[in-house]
Amino acid sequence: MIEVEVKVKIDDKDKIAEQLKNLGFKFVKKKFQEDIYFNGIDRDFRETDEALRIRDEDGKFFVTYKGPKIDKISKTREEIEVGIEDKEKMRQIFIKLGFKEVPPIRKVREIYKKDDIGASIDEVEGLGLFLELEKSIPDINKKDKVLDELMEILKSLNISRENIIRKSYLELRGLQ
Amino acid sequence: MIEVEVKVKIDDKDKIAEQLKNLGFKFVKKKFQEDIYFNGIDRDFRETDEALRIRDEDGKFFVTYKGPKIDKISKTREEIEVGIEDKEKMRQIFIKLGFKEVPPIRKVREIYKKDDIGASIDEVEGLGLFLELEKSIPDINKKDKVLDELMEILKSLNISRENIIRKSYLELRGLQ
Repeated sequence: MIEVEVKVKIDDKDKIAEQLKNLGFKFVKKKFQEDIYFNGIDRDFRETDEALRIRDEDGKFFVTYKGPKIDKISKTREEIEVGIEDKEKMRQIFIKLGFKEVPPIRKVREIYKKDDIGASIDEVEGLGLFLELEKSIPDINKKDKVLDELMEILKSLNISRENIIRKSYLELRGLQ
Repeated sequence: MIEVEVKVKIDDKDKIAEQLKNLGFKFVKKKFQEDIYFNGIDRDFRETDEALRIRDEDGKFFVTYKGPKIDKISKTREEIEVGIEDKEKMRQIFIKLGFKEVPPIRKVREIYKKDDIGASIDEVEGLGLFLELEKSIPDINKKDKVLDELMEILKSLNISRENIIRKSYLELRGLQ
């Protein structure tokens, strides 16, 4: 799947939540996510712009691979995700294979939905508040159309393009 | 976990099954297993004696890492295994990360148990019939005692030490 995604820094969570509801978004759920990221064996994922992650989402576990970002504006990229039964065993396997673990990223994520568009208000430990808009599509061809759609929503939220952040939380933490 | 394991080539499946039952082993189940193995990114697992595998066991999926064998006789080694929800997605993730896939090993495995000792009669596609005896232990200290126990069973089956094979099915196929 291709994940078309834009992210912006926000200040006021309640205001954004209210605006999303006014645009027709419905609150879905609140989740606690802890993400363990690994750096590559033969290459530095910060340079190749890839990611390997084990996510613990309220006690459900996932392994995710993210390919390099494929446009200049958004965080659009290939993403492959699979559910796993045990976080610690998978972590041990990755370490044995030679992947290098970095300290976990923790956040509380409030998820809103309107049709097939997801909006997440993230409160990230040590980094603050962010809004992510995303839509998954099976192939790359409709990327620009979907990106326009997400940009329209940002506009309706009175958030300008200049506030868009392409860096991951992992990268943002590295910049501190 | 440490998996203490010995493997021997056998000719007559029915005879071994009968002998196992006479020793107090009970038939547990018959499984079809398809194993996809990957070679390493920064090292050749044939040289380091490690293994990374995705197993499809009658439609249930597992990722397994096996460390190098740790004695001269048996196939005893560290093994870490985790259940996964989807075989194909995990396979794609490993390929994206740079692991090199080799053609799958397929077998029908008949499993017998006596207390905490497992006996498997394997009919391996292209390789023939094998018997594996195994017992998992939490740490390495009791390895030799457990190995003696497995050797006693082989003796009761009239199988001599010379028939023990330390090579994996993957390695045996490579030798053909």
